[in-house]
Amino acid sequence: MTDQGIAIERMEQLKESIDIGYLCICAAFVLLMQVGFAFLEGGCLRYKDMQSIMLKIFMNTCVTIVIWWVVGYGIAFGSDSKEFVGSSVYIGFDMKNSKHLAEFAFQTAVASAATSIVSGGAAGRMTYIGYFILSVVFSSVIYPFCAHWGFGNGWLMKLGYHDYAGSGTIHASAGMGALMTTMLLKPRNQRFNPKYAEHFEPNNPIYITLACLSLWVCWCFFNGGSSLGIADGASVFMSRAIMNTFIAGASGALTVFFIFYLMNIDQTNRYSLVMICNGNLAGLVAITGPCDNVDAWAAFVIGILGGMMMVFANRVLFNLQIDDPVDAISIHFACGMLGANLVSWFDMDTGIVYGKGGYQFAVQMLGSFIYIGWSALIHLITLLFIDKIGFLRVTLEEEYEGLDLATMGCCAYEMVEQQQ
Amino acid sequence: MTDQGIAIERMEQLKESIDIGYLCICAAFVLLMQVGFAFLEGGCLRYKDMQSIMLKIFMNTCVTIVIWWVVGYGIAFGSDSKEFVGSSVYIGFDMKNSKHLAEFAFQTAVASAATSIVSGGAAGRMTYIGYFILSVVFSSVIYPFCAHWGFGNGWLMKLGYHDYAGSGTIHASAGMGALMTTMLLKPRNQRFNPKYAEHFEPNNPIYITLACLSLWVCWCFFNGGSSLGIADGASVFMSRAIMNTFIAGASGALTVFFIFYLMNIDQTNRYSLVMICNGNLAGLVAITGPCDNVDAWAAFVIGILGGMMMVFANRVLFNLQIDDPVDAISIHFACGMLGANLVSWFDMDTGIVYGKGGYQFAVQMLGSFIYIGWSALIHLITLLFIDKIGFLRVTLEEEYEGLDLATMGCCAYEMVEQQQ
Amino acid sequence: MTDQGIAIERMEQLKESIDIGYLCICAAFVLLMQVGFAFLEGGCLRYKDMQSIMLKIFMNTCVTIVIWWVVGYGIAFGSDSKEFVGSSVYIGFDMKNSKHLAEFAFQTAVASAATSIVSGGAAGRMTYIGYFILSVVFSSVIYPFCAHWGFGNGWLMKLGYHDYAGSGTIHASAGMGALMTTMLLKPRNQRFNPKYAEHFEPNNPIYITLACLSLWVCWCFFNGGSSLGIADGASVFMSRAIMNTFIAGASGALTVFFIFYLMNIDQTNRYSLVMICNGNLAGLVAITGPCDNVDAWAAFVIGILGGMMMVFANRVLFNLQIDDPVDAISIHFACGMLGANLVSWFDMDTGIVYGKGGYQFAVQMLGSFIYIGWSALIHLITLLFIDKIGFLRVTLEEEYEGLDLATMGCCAYEMVEQQQ
Repeated sequence: MTDQGIAIERMEQLKESIDIGYLCICAAFVLLMQVGFAFLEGGCLRYKDMQSIMLKIFMNTCVTIVIWWVVGYGIAFGSDSKEFVGSSVYIGFDMKNSKHLAEFAFQTAVASAATSIVSGGAAGRMTYIGYFILSVVFSSVIYPFCAHWGFGNGWLMKLGYHDYAGSGTIHASAGMGALMTTMLLKPRNQRFNPKYAEHFEPNNPIYITLACLSLWVCWCFFNGGSSLGIADGASVFMSRAIMNTFIAGASGALTVFFIFYLMNIDQTNRYSLVMICNGNLAGLVAITGPCDNVDAWAAFVIGILGGMMMVFANRVLFNLQIDDPVDAISIHFACGMLGANLVSWFDMDTGIVYGKGGYQFAVQMLGSFIYIGWSALIHLITLLFIDKIGFLRVTLEEEYEGLDLATMGCCAYEMVEQQQ
Repeated sequence: MTDQGIAIERMEQLKESIDIGYLCICAAFVLLMQVGFAFLEGGCLRYKDMQSIMLKIFMNTCVTIVIWWVVGYGIAFGSDSKEFVGSSVYIGFDMKNSKHLAEFAFQTAVASAATSIVSGGAAGRMTYIGYFILSVVFSSVIYPFCAHWGFGNGWLMKLGYHDYAGSGTIHASAGMGALMTTMLLKPRNQRFNPKYAEHFEPNNPIYITLACLSLWVCWCFFNGGSSLGIADGASVFMSRAIMNTFIAGASGALTVFFIFYLMNIDQTNRYSLVMICNGNLAGLVAITGPCDNVDAWAAFVIGILGGMMMVFANRVLFNLQIDDPVDAISIHFACGMLGANLVSWFDMDTGIVYGKGGYQFAVQMLGSFIYIGWSALIHLITLLFIDKIGFLRVTLEEEYEGLDLATMGCCAYEMVEQQQ
Repeated sequence: MTDQGIAIERMEQLKESIDIGYLCICAAFVLLMQVGFAFLEGGCLRYKDMQSIMLKIFMNTCVTIVIWWVVGYGIAFGSDSKEFVGSSVYIGFDMKNSKHLAEFAFQTAVASAATSIVSGGAAGRMTYIGYFILSVVFSSVIYPFCAHWGFGNGWLMKLGYHDYAGSGTIHASAGMGALMTTMLLKPRNQRFNPKYAEHFEPNNPIYITLACLSLWVCWCFFNGGSSLGIADGASVFMSRAIMNTFIAGASGALTVFFIFYLMNIDQTNRYSLVMICNGNLAGLVAITGPCDNVDAWAAFVIGILGGMMMVFANRVLFNLQIDDPVDAISIHFACGMLGANLVSWFDMDTGIVYGKGGYQFAVQMLGSFIYIGWSALIHLITLLFIDKIGFLRVTLEEEYEGLDLATMGCCAYEMVEQQQ
């Protein structure tokens, strides 16, 4: 080997080390999204259901990690990849390569976030056992195939489907899971009785704010980490992804803030901390798919469209009397579908606004509908099975009492001074 | 090109990728400071104003990001830089280079933190519309010029003004904004009536602790990130910045803890969680400017001086009956001025304690007074305008009721068991 | 120098910069563990003791940083290292090298985490002055020697003791400190009176969840950071450490969740958010030592064993009427001892399950017992001294009133609407 060859080879090793280090950091901060989901959903529900949703989210995180080690990572990113399913690297087998170890950590953290999105539909009335089964199915069957098709060199990816960090692959498919779950569970008791409307207001906007600002930060690693590295030009996509994550989150938040303000202009309560949070999340979900290859102005527009979509979907769901306890469906499903399809409009290389687009438009449409169809089908089968074995919904008494007291015997936090 | 030339060129590309990756990580964690500001200010105010300050901080974060994309980043760091103002890269134009994308993210996050500091003066009584206008002006005019002069190759930087992560450029100028805001707003109703003193005690020390410990961590990226990279020796400044951020935060916290203890030695309530937090922040603000080039012992001393300054400024403001709702002025303004001027004492290359210093001393003094003068002037004009159009202060009824209930119709969190 | 020599030399400089950058990031996120400890312990205690434990943790963090700058880092990692004690780099002397600066930050953050573990034993009844003295001794004498022997090229390390991120070196030795502290303090008043059992239930499971999920993320940097870099193959150990941290945390959590479920199968309260959190922490402590060199399946098993150990130790302590206010002893001491000794079973190079192991088994056993013996001895002397000078335990009145009100005159948070 020539002298230069040695230098180049060592540099390649260094590059790999750097990519691994970067992916591990991203993996840790995508795992931190579970704090965000736990406090977002806990803050949106009634006070007396807070612990129950946090337990569900903690449980589904652990389930996803174990399942991804056993089969999920193999199906999605197995090295001997086929069109419809990957193979090998099951049960961590054949994962001696350290690039695989880091990718496992990152992709598993992403899968855990996807699973937590589904929990939004189960909030406040699904049994733990039923939700446990659903989490196992979601993380072993539903999501790994979605990930393989769109991220893991599967058939959609080969067709040219482009969904960088997964508006469709993750948010729309998991959001559809939340929709199926909430529809089969039926609304929470008295949810649409106007007399009790205020019982279903978010109990803790402060926690929603904590969650939302934390998620925004983690989303930088969720979107930025999808470059799977920084060497060899990947840093361009990473840095653009993060810039766009900043901008779309901001424009989404301001959009919903002002829509809410205008809709309530004649009332004193025309400001809402919860709505600016929801708008922020809507913008983030919408930019997730196109974040790597759209211009800053497009990110600004996509954030606005995401915010508008969230408000619109929220009204539609309410009018259809579909209970969306933590706004998971109007945020993840609706804005996820939007984001996956906005790729074909705003992508700097293939977008319609740049005069390109017929083929990309069709592929994005195909991909996003495949994802929600697949997710809806398997969720339906699973939920019907769970209903059959009697683990779908808690009793009316338990729901009335609140899941925390009914299943754990204690409240989330108590202000009352304890006597001794 | 020679063989060696190829290896060196590839290494330069790798270095750039690494610096971009590093900056993006720092950008995300400087954005996380907004959680810190939200919970710090929320915890310091009355319970019934918590949501309102968090909404203001969320709003100013989004405003700053959008404004920096439109004009702020161009003014501060435009590549065709002049003495008093940068140019180009407005509206993200001409930002094809990925180094620019990452620097935009980092500097925008820093600018958002600066904007949030001003909110401390607006707490508890400023209208949302008024504060929105103030945020637009601060992030489009006031701070971008400060950043250009001190960080962006502007005239102060060319004179030799050294303020690594911005004790003067950021904290003193934004702290002056908080001071102007609180002075024009006038104190909160009954603030200095001894009968109601306890109503203005921080309502939630636990949130202040969460905020403060989180901010300390983010501050490592705020100070460390100001190296804008790690390659080519920048890692020395980064690692020294982080070590000094640890040490000055610790010595500041212990200083204020013991001062409070000694001042209340004859009372049972001689310990305070809030004061150890404030001392920590004071030390952090003071070390922000000199962090890159002072020794560990100097960081220890600077932390102590920051802590003492905070206690002193706090007493002065109280005696002058200037309302400082979240101690933003005694921490950011007073300790920011201190930190900017301590550079000329402790800097290892130019400091007075090392026998250097006349010129540096004069430049630091000039720079810090320029910053607070500029900030005071534009804030004054803006606030008078806001007052003129009637958006300065909420009504007495709204303030009495608490901004949360008056403008959002709901409380931050409720402990009361909801009935159904 | 040849052309190639220049390229290689520059690459070595770049590698060092990268390792420094990586270590600094890890340092910041190990510091973030203090948020986790503060909210974990605050959530586990009575509401009326929350601020007091957070003040203790904040104080011991600052104490550790200052002490490590003065002597701790020198004893543990002094460059002129001896078998039993390091030397030089006291008071930051001779720390011009930037690798030292970054390692100082990382190791100091690790030492702060260790100190916080001890606070678990002091919770709810130790005086601040007494705890301050204990923190000074722990961070200047007890832990620096542990670190030197096992991490800093000391005698245990030379014997072949392998404890990657410190199940024994950190968790068992600090956990033993918590045990000695709680035993010398005696149980909290009425702790084992069945009539008051519910007064000692965790007051805020939501905070425990926040703490636990945050700690899990920080633990990735705690374990991953112990590679002290990523270049030259260190990335393999880092990425494996993080993968195993994911898996063992998940399997530990699920194990304790199901054990609790089965133990309470005939009751309605058979689910517990606190127990899934504790199981997660137990798995994390157990994997800390072996994380770099065990296979994924072994991490899965180690998590399960950690969970079982935690439940077992918890029962034993309760039956012995040893008060373990925040489960620090059953988690850090018991699972730390377990993890240190599981290295000799599961290590891919030296483990018993791979047919190796007599020597490693003996060394791990020796090391872990040396650590707890050393820790127990110095803690005993220190606590007897503290008792002698009258700063061990607060009065019964203060304990009854709650430390927050008794020493700070205010509550952690108040829900009551303040009147004006």
